Amino acid sequence: MKIIFKNSSISYPVFIGHQIFPQLSERLQRFISSRKIIFITTKTLEKLYWNTIQKQFDHSWKLKKITISDKEKDKNFKTVQNIIQKLIQLSADKNTTLIGLGGGIVGDLTGFVASIYMRGIPFVSIPTSLLAQVDSSIGGKCGINLPHGKNLVGSFYHPKMVFTDIAFLNTLPKKDFHSGLAEVIKYAIISGGSLWKMLKFEKEKILNKDPKILTSLIKKCVSVKKIHIEQDEKDNSKRQILNLGHTIGHALETHAHYNHFSHGEAVAQGLYKEQEFSFKKGLCTSKTLTHVQKILKQYQFSELFFSDSIFKEISHDKKREGKEISWILVKEIGNIERIRLPIHELAVF
Amino acid sequence: MKIIFKNSSISYPVFIGHQIFPQLSERLQRFISSRKIIFITTKTLEKLYWNTIQKQFDHSWKLKKITISDKEKDKNFKTVQNIIQKLIQLSADKNTTLIGLGGGIVGDLTGFVASIYMRGIPFVSIPTSLLAQVDSSIGGKCGINLPHGKNLVGSFYHPKMVFTDIAFLNTLPKKDFHSGLAEVIKYAIISGGSLWKMLKFEKEKILNKDPKILTSLIKKCVSVKKIHIEQDEKDNSKRQILNLGHTIGHALETHAHYNHFSHGEAVAQGLYKEQEFSFKKGLCTSKTLTHVQKILKQYQFSELFFSDSIFKEISHDKKREGKEISWILVKEIGNIERIRLPIHELAVF
Repeated sequence: MKIIFKNSSISYPVFIGHQIFPQLSERLQRFISSRKIIFITTKTLEKLYWNTIQKQFDHSWKLKKITISDKEKDKNFKTVQNIIQKLIQLSADKNTTLIGLGGGIVGDLTGFVASIYMRGIPFVSIPTSLLAQVDSSIGGKCGINLPHGKNLVGSFYHPKMVFTDIAFLNTLPKKDFHSGLAEVIKYAIISGGSLWKMLKFEKEKILNKDPKILTSLIKKCVSVKKIHIEQDEKDNSKRQILNLGHTIGHALETHAHYNHFSHGEAVAQGLYKEQEFSFKKGLCTSKTLTHVQKILKQYQFSELFFSDSIFKEISHDKKREGKEISWILVKEIGNIERIRLPIHELAVF
Repeated sequence: MKIIFKNSSISYPVFIGHQIFPQLSERLQRFISSRKIIFITTKTLEKLYWNTIQKQFDHSWKLKKITISDKEKDKNFKTVQNIIQKLIQLSADKNTTLIGLGGGIVGDLTGFVASIYMRGIPFVSIPTSLLAQVDSSIGGKCGINLPHGKNLVGSFYHPKMVFTDIAFLNTLPKKDFHSGLAEVIKYAIISGGSLWKMLKFEKEKILNKDPKILTSLIKKCVSVKKIHIEQDEKDNSKRQILNLGHTIGHALETHAHYNHFSHGEAVAQGLYKEQEFSFKKGLCTSKTLTHVQKILKQYQFSELFFSDSIFKEISHDKKREGKEISWILVKEIGNIERIRLPIHELAVF
């Protein structure tokens, strides 16, 4: 299955399927112009997949690799500089393609480095986590964290192609799969309809990683994202809807110094808190509030309670404009609104 | 005088004139959408111009400043991180415009930070050196140096406008003015015609900074650049012509750890050496070689001699592709060619 992303300046395919990894080299040669590639991946994934990778690339390819940490706390300037140092050692030039093989953090780092090394070199994304497959691998956002806030530095830079094999999810640790489900829930709340129903009624198949249902689920999420970003590539209006749960989620991650919470766990807490905020502002009914709470509980995300101090982190959010911030709030399942409110309104928590 | 730059995705004006600085705030409000601005400049320029700046911006503007070093050796990741840290302290958001007031290094750093802070915020360039006015302020290239090579990290990111006041050249140190003349000579060699003649016959007026002749000179250089970059924004083909003198020039700067030589002095040496290379490869006549040598001498650039070891730095040049490198070589004044040659051919020196 192939979904084409189109923006003002670029279009690229997202391939989604089960056990399609052996087709990688064949696909690659159609979308990149040279055969010099450098994989950026983790030690764990290297152990699992490097032999398979080497088998499918013959000697006409120049194949190299760099391994990095995929901890959120290492998604920073230091790791970017280390990767760049290694690219120079490996003689990467303007025609070398970087291939990010990993979860969201590997993808964010690979995309960001590709966007600034020699003012931009080609890159390809192979997302191996559920979170990266449904969300972070597409849309061209890449970046790193600062102590003051998540993704405060980065760029919009599109891959040449995204190659999503559902089979990677079989080697994904359980907690990472769970983390990805928070983003899936976010997409279901945004779109409503068949994705919402699938999540509500197919829990067993989803948790058992049924390839057919997962392929369909990921395709639906990617299609929701496609609609939003094709209309607003640079995240100034409609695309911000996709930040549902992320304003508070990011604040929580920053507050915890990118430890303790996975991104998905933080987003799940964001979905809880932002829905309560929506309810308190009179934007949604108690029925909608319950819907959101129920689906989160159904997928084992329990609500946690925090002191107000985490909310001061929100003042560094990229959606802030002067003394106001754009909130993404759910009115009903499938009906989301962007509302600008003064930052001090956060005191309602 | 206004020259409009157009690329696939963006167009922006370059204003060029004498004593136009007092019109800055008026121009700004037409090209940026908010009144939050942060000047990035040097301590020297702050002392010279900050009072004048404050006078022309009334209280409807939020005016802040960050001062940085403008030494080539500080155009690096560390300075980028320092600027970003200060932007956060000053609560810069996505609508804050950065204004780079300074020479090429201030412009490169401001543009690069603007391109990655919050995935891109607006910026405006006010070049104060001859080098920045004729060359680096336009075309959207920004970047930083690594120990391994010049501008190895950066992006293509366009300003909202470029504002070039010839009067800044009156406070420019003599050696910096001289450095800028090397880029002017480069443009004259590339274009030939009236720019070449002006340089050849108007030396006294140029060195005396006659406002009329300098305005015309800068306009001509900018127009040459415009022709090349509008056809090749991302520097894959025709734009590379503008790198004349820079392959060896950059190698020299890298070899000297960004000390000893100004950019212009290094480019002048590059123009000498690359012309000799062109002659030895049989690409130009001895007459053309003499033309280039003469104009450089006319503007007090003497040829220096280096050991071969500097040329190993060329292997990190961005124009390298595998074992070859694109050389930009002069066949005649106004007639330049891009030629790919194996890197080992450098042994001819």
